Formats: sequence, structure tokens, C-alpha cells
Amino acid sequence: MSQNKPIWMEESAVFMIDQRLLPHRVETLRLDSYPETIRAIQEMAVRGAGTIGVAGGFAMAQAALDAPEAGFWEQTQRAAEEISAARPTAKNLSHAVDRVFSAMRKEKETAAARRRAVSEAQAFYDENVEMSEKIGQAGLPLLPQGKAVLTHCNAGWLACTGLGTALAPIFAAHRQGKPVFVIATETRPRGQGAKLTVWELSQAGVPHALIADTAAGHFMSRGEIGMVIVGADRIAANGDTANKIGTYTLAVLAKEHKIPFYVAAPSPTFDAGCPSGARIPIEERHEDELLRAEGSLHSGEQASIRVATPGVKARNPAFDVTPAALITAFITEAGLIQPNSAAISVFLSGK
Amino acid sequence: MSQNKPIWMEESAVFMIDQRLLPHRVETLRLDSYPETIRAIQEMAVRGAGTIGVAGGFAMAQAALDAPEAGFWEQTQRAAEEISAARPTAKNLSHAVDRVFSAMRKEKETAAARRRAVSEAQAFYDENVEMSEKIGQAGLPLLPQGKAVLTHCNAGWLACTGLGTALAPIFAAHRQGKPVFVIATETRPRGQGAKLTVWELSQAGVPHALIADTAAGHFMSRGEIGMVIVGADRIAANGDTANKIGTYTLAVLAKEHKIPFYVAAPSPTFDAGCPSGARIPIEERHEDELLRAEGSLHSGEQASIRVATPGVKARNPAFDVTPAALITAFITEAGLIQPNSAAISVFLSGK
Repeated sequence: MSQNKPIWMEESAVFMIDQRLLPHRVETLRLDSYPETIRAIQEMAVRGAGTIGVAGGFAMAQAALDAPEAGFWEQTQRAAEEISAARPTAKNLSHAVDRVFSAMRKEKETAAARRRAVSEAQAFYDENVEMSEKIGQAGLPLLPQGKAVLTHCNAGWLACTGLGTALAPIFAAHRQGKPVFVIATETRPRGQGAKLTVWELSQAGVPHALIADTAAGHFMSRGEIGMVIVGADRIAANGDTANKIGTYTLAVLAKEHKIPFYVAAPSPTFDAGCPSGARIPIEERHEDELLRAEGSLHSGEQASIRVATPGVKARNPAFDVTPAALITAFITEAGLIQPNSAAISVFLSGK
Repeated sequence: MSQNKPIWMEESAVFMIDQRLLPHRVETLRLDSYPETIRAIQEMAVRGAGTIGVAGGFAMAQAALDAPEAGFWEQTQRAAEEISAARPTAKNLSHAVDRVFSAMRKEKETAAARRRAVSEAQAFYDENVEMSEKIGQAGLPLLPQGKAVLTHCNAGWLACTGLGTALAPIFAAHRQGKPVFVIATETRPRGQGAKLTVWELSQAGVPHALIADTAAGHFMSRGEIGMVIVGADRIAANGDTANKIGTYTLAVLAKEHKIPFYVAAPSPTFDAGCPSGARIPIEERHEDELLRAEGSLHSGEQASIRVATPGVKARNPAFDVTPAALITAFITEAGLIQPNSAAISVFLSGK
């Protein structure tokens, strides 16, 4: 499984699996310049905090390769700002851009800066894969026996490279032949659970059941869930965590049922500069995401249908914030981190 | 609004709005015999506990009209059993059938029994409408000021006749010109919130916003919700309540946020013979409800699309049980009833 790649760079082109077409078609997009890569991020051809970060790093490398000799630093500086702003919630995006841009700035010659941008973006990718392996190992002993693991949205290899984040312990267990059963929520409005998570699980042969988002409480009340594990888009310094809309609801349900609730995320998802969840910007996306659904007709053709009453009003926040108090622990590349400022600060200072 | 009729009977035919086609088309089904009416109940052309009950009463009247002189009582007895079993969760269905059948049995002549079946089924309908008006009046003073009312699934006039149950206080307030704002959940997998509730609200001009089921916790945490009100499919003697899947999750969220959580339901929804929620049968429906979505193409044509990965496994419970402890009160035709065995027993003994 770990050889599955959602994104890569060749020369000055970025390639990515177009996640909007999954699970119906597996197609690769070729993006020849950083503005094209930005558009792919904005239009969610690529998604998932980790993979968005990698895409941002590659886009920064593209910007460096494309910028002319004259005004090189002004242009790349502007590109860094544009790329970082492509989506507001995921911390990994600006983290990756900052890192590639800082590495470039250590070079005096633009030719060297270009080479450095490419190697740094690639190193960021490689580290992401390595971190996901470590998250898998750290989370593996926490998996429940005889009960299901509940996950939300998609935090597998598509979202995060490598083994993913939330799915990493699951893939690691399955690789070792340990039994694991996953309950995946559909994750409306975009359905990443139904389209991506169960696709990854079924491709890998991991036993699973897809459920409606509305059914999570029911299965918890029946005692069928032994653990909740999700990814994160941004984790504040105090441990408050922004992740896909619906995560907070699952955390409240887990508390009610005394089920451990883990957030799996590598260090780039942590934002030491953000004091608490109240300061994390929450992206509100177009209401059509909720009023419509995307899928395939009997003919196999892709189609978008209107599922809601015409002319109604809708609100569509893409993320919510789970307070640190509802989180059992973070599963990171450095093992388990407690959800408080002190522990997070020690963890990040080791980076 | 109260003149909207989801179902009615003329001679021996039952007519109903085909709720599966809403909001895209408003079409009336004509059902000429009780087996056709059973099929319409099973296939969810008609839905909502109250309207299912009325449909069951009408189906029983059809069975009486159709049964031949010879073997009349055996045939109608068998029909009563078949109709009651059409869907397992809604209490109103068997309640209506029992009531019509008991009334028939008071007659000796089959001709009189037939007339009595029709008049009793119609009386059941009329009382349903009257109860919904009373529920509207009882719930009206509870509506929050300056905050939204959150509702789930559809418990308006389509589901319950009259003003509905959960929507009755909202329609009653709107009729009086009192400001009210409704947040309606999509209610996957069948999307009754997106297809029916916001359709009813927009037809009546009630301000509203549709949200994903995943977003309910987010809006509660932001302080935007002042009250949750839902309908019910069956209420046990101790107050445990079966309703559309996702209701339990909203009740847990309401508890966490100290938001009042009301269940609006008339007496036929209460099941004195069912001691607790653990004894309420929960219908598991076909996984295609979750793996697919229904809606309209740009052309206006109705289409069913596959939204989930082909070949995945899914689980699709249609209802869940909310323990009485999470319910603030029941809003009934006799006013507010506390969610405990003693109060419910007094309420039902007055019937």
C-alpha cells in the first residue's frame, strides 16, 4: 500500500491523482505551472492536509523554476503568498511553502535557489511518508480488539501520502495480518468517506462498513465502536483541532460513550502561532456542495444531480473545531502527545 | 398551510402525494386496493409516522371494502396483520389498523362493518389533523428568540398531516407572524430534510437554512441553535424514543450544549406495550439507500447515481433510539409531557 502515490513531481511538472473522479475513475492530472497547481488545490483535485502541504511545496518549487532572473525574489515571494492562501484551513500548506521558500533564501544564486526549492519540496514529501509510517507504528497498539475503529473523512494515503494519518495504524495492522474492522462515515457534503476512504480500504482488502454520518451515534450506543481516529487540518498550540466538518460531533459522541478519540497528525499540522481553536479560520464553501451530489449513472457516466429542493438556502462550513478537552491524545511521528499546550510545545520544540 | 393534504380516500381508492418524487415533481398516486397501499408504504411513497398511520387506516378500510361476504372476518383479520407488518418501527401504523379493525368488529353485518371501517379511518385522519394543531399551540411558546430551531428528517404536514408534529409549532408561529428561523439537517441517507422539510418551509415562506448532518455540532458550538425539535416513530412506555437515524446524535449534542431537546408526537406514537427503547425493533434498510443518491439532472430528469465506491459494504439502520434522559419533554396534543413512565402513563390513560 505504501507505494501508492497521490502526487509527485517530474522536471517542472506536478502530477496528481484527480481525487474528484475517484472512485469511478483513476486519472492523473499534469500541472505545468504553479498557478495550475494552485487551481488544483482550490478545486480540490488534491485534498487532505498532508497532500495539500506536499502540493504547496511542489507549487513553490514550480514557482522558483518559472521565475525569471530579473525580479526572481519578488516573484517567488508573491507566489509563496498566493500558494499559502489557496485554502485557508490546512496548516500544512503554508508550512510547506514557508519551508521551501526559507530553504531557497539560503542560496545567493537563483540557479542554486531553484535547485534547492525542488530538493526541499521533494524532501518534504519524503519526510511526510516517513512520518506516516511512524504514526502507523505509534497508533497500532491502540487499536481495539473485537470492536470497530470509526474514522471520518479521508486521512489515508490519498490525503497524507505514505500510509496516511488516521488510516496509518489500520494499514500497518493489516500489513502485519492483525484483524481490524473499520467503520467509515460517508462524510457529507463531499462524501470523502464514501468515495475515498472505503475505496482505499477495499483496494487494500481491509474489512469495513460504510455508514451514514447520522448513524455514528447509533453504532456507538450499541457498543460496536472501540476507538475513533481522525486526521486534522490544523492543530492550535493548546490542542484545539480543526478537521473536516462532523469531527466535533464524533468527539462529543465519543465522550458520551467513553470511547477513546484520537487525532493522528504529523508535526506540520500543528500551528504553534495559533493560540486556540477560536483563531482557526473556518472555510465556508459553496452551498452547491450540499445541494448537489456527484456520482456515476448506470451507464458509468459521471453526473451531478440536485438532491435538495430548488431555491432553498444552505450553509456549508467545511471544517469544525474539536476542543482539546475532547481528545484522548495526538498520534504523531514522535508517538503519543497529550492534548495540552505544554506537551505540544515540548513536541514542537524537538522539531 | 393546514389545507395541504399528503393523503386522502375517495370511494375505495387511496390517493397520496408520491413523496419519493419531491421536491422535483408533485404527483399523486392512486391506489385501488389494500395490497397496493401496503406496497406504497413499504416503498416509502408515503412516509412519516403520522401519515403512515393514516395510510394504514385507509388500507384497512380498503381491505374491508374488498373482502367478500364469505370469509369476511378471516380475510380482514389477515389484511390487518399484513398492513401492520408493512413497516416495523412506526407505532402509528399498527395503532391505526387496530383501531379501524376494532371498530369494524363492533358491527355484526359486513355491510355495516365496511361503512364503519371507512368512517373510522377518516375519523383517525381528522383527529390526526386536530392533534397536530394542538401540538403546534403547545410548542409555540417554547420557540427560542434570536436563535434557530434545529430539526431533523421531516415531521411536517407531509409526514404527519395537518401542521405536522415537529414543524407544527414553527408553522403555527409563522402563521401568527412571529419570527422563526429553522435549521434543517439534510438527513442522509434518504435526505428527507433536503427534499421535504426545506420544501415545506420554502413553500410556506419560513426562513431556513439547510445544513449537512455533519454540521449540527458546529452550529450548536457557535451558539446559533436555541432548541432542537424532532418527531418520533415510536415512544416506549418509559419515554425512550425511536426516530430517524441521527436523532440520537442530535440529542447527545444538545445535552453537551445544554440546548432543550423536544420530541413532538401525538398519543398514537406512544406504545404503552413497549417497556423501553431496547425493545423497539430497528429497521435496517437496503444499503443502496446509502450507496446511491436520488435527484435531478440539469435537464430536470430524475436520476439515481452511485455516490460510493463500487463493491463496498455498508450498514444502513433507518432509526435510532434516544433515551428518555436526553429528552426535555414531549410536545403532545395534551401539552407538555415529562419523559418518564409515570407521566406517560397518566397521559395515555386520559386517551
